[in-house]
Amino acid sequence: MTREKSKIRRQKGLIIVYTGEGKGKTTAAIGLAMRTAGWEKKIAIIQFIKGFKETGEWKLIKNIDQIDIYQTIESETAFIGKPEKKHEGGCKKAVLILRELITSGKHDVLILDEINNAIFYDLVEVGEIIKILKKRSAGQTVVFTGRNAAQEIIEIADLVTEMKKIKHPYDKGIQAKRGIDY
Amino acid sequence: MTREKSKIRRQKGLIIVYTGEGKGKTTAAIGLAMRTAGWEKKIAIIQFIKGFKETGEWKLIKNIDQIDIYQTIESETAFIGKPEKKHEGGCKKAVLILRELITSGKHDVLILDEINNAIFYDLVEVGEIIKILKKRSAGQTVVFTGRNAAQEIIEIADLVTEMKKIKHPYDKGIQAKRGIDY
Repeated sequence: MTREKSKIRRQKGLIIVYTGEGKGKTTAAIGLAMRTAGWEKKIAIIQFIKGFKETGEWKLIKNIDQIDIYQTIESETAFIGKPEKKHEGGCKKAVLILRELITSGKHDVLILDEINNAIFYDLVEVGEIIKILKKRSAGQTVVFTGRNAAQEIIEIADLVTEMKKIKHPYDKGIQAKRGIDY
Repeated sequence: MTREKSKIRRQKGLIIVYTGEGKGKTTAAIGLAMRTAGWEKKIAIIQFIKGFKETGEWKLIKNIDQIDIYQTIESETAFIGKPEKKHEGGCKKAVLILRELITSGKHDVLILDEINNAIFYDLVEVGEIIKILKKRSAGQTVVFTGRNAAQEIIEIADLVTEMKKIKHPYDKGIQAKRGIDY
C-alpha cells in the first residue's frame, strides 16, 4: 500500500444524505457509485422498498464488477401511500444485509437507497441503523437516499443535500421516461 | 425498429436542470448518464469550465462505449472567483461541439456540465444555447448542471431540481475526497 493510499484509508468515511421532494436523489447516489468505481473501489447498493429490476441502473450495474447491488423484495413499483407486508419483510432482510456488509468491511461506499422512507414508515428502526453505522471501518462512506430523512440521521451526517423540486415533468402530465427516471 | 422503440423516439426529450449550492448536481447527471447507458442508448457529456481528467467519472466513462465525454480546456481545478482567458476559449469550443452533436442527432442524452456557471459568467450566450436546443431531434434530452441557472433556461425546462445545501463537509474542514467528490 502506498503512503498516499494508506492516508486515504485512514480518513473517516462520510455519512451523506440526499433527501427532499425533487428528482435526483437516487440518480446522484448512482453517480457517486460510478465515480467511486472509476477509482477501482468497491461499492454496495442496498435497495430498500424498491423491487424492480427493469431499470437502467440495474442493467448497467450488474455488469460492473466493483458494484454489488441487492434487492430484497419482488415488486414492480414502489408503494404508494402505505407500505405492504412484503415491504416490512424486505426491509428486515435489507438491514441484515447491511449488518453483514458493514461487518465484512469490504466496501468503500455503501448506498442505502430509499432507506429514509423506510425509516419514515417505521419499516426500519433508526436507532438500529445508527448502531450498525458505528461499527463501520474507517474510510467507509454511507449514503442515505429518499424523501423524509430522519432528524437523527441528519444530525450524524457530514453532507446533506435537499433536492428541492422547482419544476417536475409529472406536473405537466409527462410520464416517467425509460433511461431518465429509471 | 420495433413499435415500442419508435414510440420512445417520438416522445419529446426533456430539458433537465440541476442547480443550487448543494452537492450532487454533476453527480446526478453522471447517474442519469449511467441509467441511460443501461438501456443501450447514447450519451454525450460536454464539460464546460472543468478541465481535469483525474476524476472517477472520467476514468470510468472512457471505458463505456455508449458515453462520449468532451473537455475543451486543460486545467487542474475549476476557476475560483473570476474566469480566465482559457475558460473563454474553452467555452467557445464547447458550444461548437454542442452544435455539432445536436446536428448529428446521434445522442439520446446530452449533458452540459457546469454550463449554468458558464452562462452566469458570460462565457456562453444563453440565447445562442436556446437557439441550438430548438434544433434538437425529438427524444433528445438535454441536462444543464451548475450553480446559478439562468432564468431563461429554467423557463424552458421540464424538470428543475435545486440541490439545496443543508450540511456540507467543507464547512467542518473536511477536504474533497477522491471517489466521492471527484
